[in-house]
Amino acid sequence: MQPGFAMLTAGLTRAKNAGNILMKNLMDFCMSSLGYWAIGFALMYGAGNLFLGGSFFFLQGIPEETSGVPTLAFWLFQLVFAGTAATIVAGAMAERTRFRAYLVYSLVISAVIYPIVGHWVWGGGWLANLGFLDFAGSTVVHGVGGWAGLMGAIILGPRLGRYNSDGSPNAIPGHSLSLAMLGVFILWFGWFGFNPGSTLSGMQANLIAKVAVNTNLAAAAGAIVAMLAAWLRTGNPDVGLSMNGALAGLVAITAPCAFVSPLSAIIIGAVGGVVVIYGVSFLDRIRVDDPVGAVPVHAFSGVWGTLAVGLFHETSGLFYGGGWGQLGIQGLGIIAIFAWTTLTAGMLFVIIKYTIRLRVSPEEERMGLDHGEHAVRAYPDFSVSSLD
Amino acid sequence: MQPGFAMLTAGLTRAKNAGNILMKNLMDFCMSSLGYWAIGFALMYGAGNLFLGGSFFFLQGIPEETSGVPTLAFWLFQLVFAGTAATIVAGAMAERTRFRAYLVYSLVISAVIYPIVGHWVWGGGWLANLGFLDFAGSTVVHGVGGWAGLMGAIILGPRLGRYNSDGSPNAIPGHSLSLAMLGVFILWFGWFGFNPGSTLSGMQANLIAKVAVNTNLAAAAGAIVAMLAAWLRTGNPDVGLSMNGALAGLVAITAPCAFVSPLSAIIIGAVGGVVVIYGVSFLDRIRVDDPVGAVPVHAFSGVWGTLAVGLFHETSGLFYGGGWGQLGIQGLGIIAIFAWTTLTAGMLFVIIKYTIRLRVSPEEERMGLDHGEHAVRAYPDFSVSSLD
Amino acid sequence: MQPGFAMLTAGLTRAKNAGNILMKNLMDFCMSSLGYWAIGFALMYGAGNLFLGGSFFFLQGIPEETSGVPTLAFWLFQLVFAGTAATIVAGAMAERTRFRAYLVYSLVISAVIYPIVGHWVWGGGWLANLGFLDFAGSTVVHGVGGWAGLMGAIILGPRLGRYNSDGSPNAIPGHSLSLAMLGVFILWFGWFGFNPGSTLSGMQANLIAKVAVNTNLAAAAGAIVAMLAAWLRTGNPDVGLSMNGALAGLVAITAPCAFVSPLSAIIIGAVGGVVVIYGVSFLDRIRVDDPVGAVPVHAFSGVWGTLAVGLFHETSGLFYGGGWGQLGIQGLGIIAIFAWTTLTAGMLFVIIKYTIRLRVSPEEERMGLDHGEHAVRAYPDFSVSSLD
Repeated sequence: MQPGFAMLTAGLTRAKNAGNILMKNLMDFCMSSLGYWAIGFALMYGAGNLFLGGSFFFLQGIPEETSGVPTLAFWLFQLVFAGTAATIVAGAMAERTRFRAYLVYSLVISAVIYPIVGHWVWGGGWLANLGFLDFAGSTVVHGVGGWAGLMGAIILGPRLGRYNSDGSPNAIPGHSLSLAMLGVFILWFGWFGFNPGSTLSGMQANLIAKVAVNTNLAAAAGAIVAMLAAWLRTGNPDVGLSMNGALAGLVAITAPCAFVSPLSAIIIGAVGGVVVIYGVSFLDRIRVDDPVGAVPVHAFSGVWGTLAVGLFHETSGLFYGGGWGQLGIQGLGIIAIFAWTTLTAGMLFVIIKYTIRLRVSPEEERMGLDHGEHAVRAYPDFSVSSLD
Repeated sequence: MQPGFAMLTAGLTRAKNAGNILMKNLMDFCMSSLGYWAIGFALMYGAGNLFLGGSFFFLQGIPEETSGVPTLAFWLFQLVFAGTAATIVAGAMAERTRFRAYLVYSLVISAVIYPIVGHWVWGGGWLANLGFLDFAGSTVVHGVGGWAGLMGAIILGPRLGRYNSDGSPNAIPGHSLSLAMLGVFILWFGWFGFNPGSTLSGMQANLIAKVAVNTNLAAAAGAIVAMLAAWLRTGNPDVGLSMNGALAGLVAITAPCAFVSPLSAIIIGAVGGVVVIYGVSFLDRIRVDDPVGAVPVHAFSGVWGTLAVGLFHETSGLFYGGGWGQLGIQGLGIIAIFAWTTLTAGMLFVIIKYTIRLRVSPEEERMGLDHGEHAVRAYPDFSVSSLD
Repeated sequence: MQPGFAMLTAGLTRAKNAGNILMKNLMDFCMSSLGYWAIGFALMYGAGNLFLGGSFFFLQGIPEETSGVPTLAFWLFQLVFAGTAATIVAGAMAERTRFRAYLVYSLVISAVIYPIVGHWVWGGGWLANLGFLDFAGSTVVHGVGGWAGLMGAIILGPRLGRYNSDGSPNAIPGHSLSLAMLGVFILWFGWFGFNPGSTLSGMQANLIAKVAVNTNLAAAAGAIVAMLAAWLRTGNPDVGLSMNGALAGLVAITAPCAFVSPLSAIIIGAVGGVVVIYGVSFLDRIRVDDPVGAVPVHAFSGVWGTLAVGLFHETSGLFYGGGWGQLGIQGLGIIAIFAWTTLTAGMLFVIIKYTIRLRVSPEEERMGLDHGEHAVRAYPDFSVSSLD
């Protein structure tokens, strides 16, 4: 997933910040790797109580197998989820966040904030006990990343020049649709590892196939519907919104992919495509500057996908005669994880803001973070207009 | 395969059309996903007659397993083939096709035109009964895409400025060799899923290994021979032709990969590399403008690869004492599929031309399709000379 | 691995040479494919003596299985190693090597120089008999590529303008950090095939998991430590050095990945990150111009990783009470392979230099190799400052 997010967020931001955003995507996976090795896995899957795991620090004392696969393989797979939660935040806070602040908060998110949520749902915690279902992380992974990104974007404030004094937004287009589209394709492909991989034991070929098909159909439906919705609203089939529609479809189907029919997957993905269109507009209206649309894609569409389990689940879903129970539990889980993530991530960002500073200086932002943070230019052979 | 084609065709076309071509590659896979779910799979693998399948619409009533794998996995794998057939067309018709026309025809190709050919050969139809062999689609997939692209390129006419009034061609170089080469590498890698994956049950490790080795050797030989041929003709080892040589080798080995020896694979790939060089020149001579060389790579080299089964097949091939029978059947299948595809795709493009229009206006073509179709610029931070 | 190296080296060199370096990366894999089919595999795995294999030329007479997998699959996997050894050299000799010289030497390296080393260690040769351990090629693959690259860079001399008359270096930044970072991500991902794949039979799930985890942790540690070291020395978290730190961690863990604990992997990777920082400075001090840092990453960090087996091996390592024996054998193997590679590659480059010439003319170097060697521009829609 990491190269997908790297290319996507780099492509959707300006050339003067490309080196910085790429570096952040590289280093957050490095920090996550060490953080999830030392602490994260222990908090998430260690023996503990309903709220927190407490063994397996530094992978000490792990059993040979977990869920039928070698525990080290299980760890590596789970690390990708932790890294994803952390890297989602980079997009929402792009083009203005200090690099050292980034290192700190991506470590805390992947080693503490995310694993505790993970323990609640996947590590035998209280939400698992209640029957909350999130197959591959619409809320556990994407919600955590998206809500943390939302808090970061709010606390940072918008990029210079993003909103006029009357509150109307100025579009700040990304520097390379090619990179962004490559990122979308890599993510789409990566999702085939992400979602079906969650049926870990690998023996359930039928379930894996169903999950993969649902994942693909939801992405396709999300892209098509987002394209059509943008077309109706603006008169153009917008490229960026269609890409985000595909991603919103993928995020939405992540929770329910193992529990619903292909037709339901199409509906879930399609609604994800609508959610992202309205989500982008909504953030602009409240003047929260999320350069790549990470919050609508991951948080808003993640909420929808998690609720969709309660609607479309083939046995416990409302539309399948399962009553309101599952839907209620899904809602409760969403609210609890929203509260936990916004509270802890918010505190984290505020602490960073008043210690090592969260945001670069205005000059640095104008000159570009590549120059200010890394003394480098991403494209030195080309003249880059955003540099001036 | 989809990101490979997206990067390749984007790289080989101009920056002013990059967003459009990327968007087409994204959306044709989305349209194919829904079209092959609703109709395509039914026409291809449904119970029917020798010419057409007729059950499994919307995947209703599918058996649990097909060819020893879950039917949903089988469907997903087959979808990649359908998407490939559709996306090949995008290259041949690049830089001048209307976006809405593209959506319509890529849906029809992946949901109707391609699946019917697929039924003939892989779904128990009349060509299968005759003994026509096309292991992974030199003709079924690449031929259909290539011939449809040829009809499209003819009906569209060449890009503005492509040919002088005396008929001599002007080279219109693509905007990024990096993207194009990335596309080639992704496709080469993707072919290791495409060809060996066609031995679906996954139990035949020896056959999978042979197919993979043949695939790789043919690609290498195609690239080397195309490079040498270009070197002899122009005095330079041409990058674009070498890339297309690799792809031609891959297309050529697609039909025979399971039936021939590694040495035969090298010969088949090498001839593919020659075919593409002469094919490119031939199209220029008849003034058919195929911006990325999709027709020589997929249609012409696909014909060669399909015939090569009749020559190199280790039991029924002419060179192995199998007589002319297999070769005759291969030729018959090629002709039938050529006729079907050019006829139906030709009709489709003509209908589009006189209803929703197939080609953008000359102004739009000059300004670039990114501007005209999507109100976007692919590289807004850079000054792009093709924009003016 | 090939697309990773292609994107990395292209991104780290100038736009005027991008087509050339991409073409070299494509063609060396093509040449390796044929060379390793015809000769290389025979020299490496054929029946022979302690120094050289001598059967299986053109894959004739190979057994059905090798190491529990189909021999053709084994061959394909080994080909990737041969291609990697050859392509590493491209980076160290970038931006000034003649294309036809490149074709010749990459063929010789992948078909002769590398396979003989491979026979010594993996084909039952004298180093295998002594107990030299190099699980996936820190020295066998990366050392051979790195040392050959060092000889090439020395014999070629530095690029025009790289060093001032007083010996101080001028930085020549690469043209695209995006491409370079994409290359790093692809390589990182490819390493999960490279290292765990070396446990070929695929049955040892626990060992595969351990290898994969070690690979990932070493890469993360290498990147973090290189970033910190660069930060301390220059005041900036350098993007290029961090990327090379990740790669150095990967190279370092390649030899010991199956023999050490995750904690050792972190230490090994971290030291790799330091090695690359000092290696880059060292080459600059002796005025050897290695445009992408291939020698520090592959040769220097490869030495470290190979020695690390002797230190951290869980039974025979010095730190685990195994005494000095393993470490001595590791050192002996490193020296032998260094001597063989520098000698043969050095002779090869000298012969090329005095026959078909190794280096392009100064005008060609100034104009760019894309223009001089291939009559092409990689980015014709953009104005490229390095072209003038």
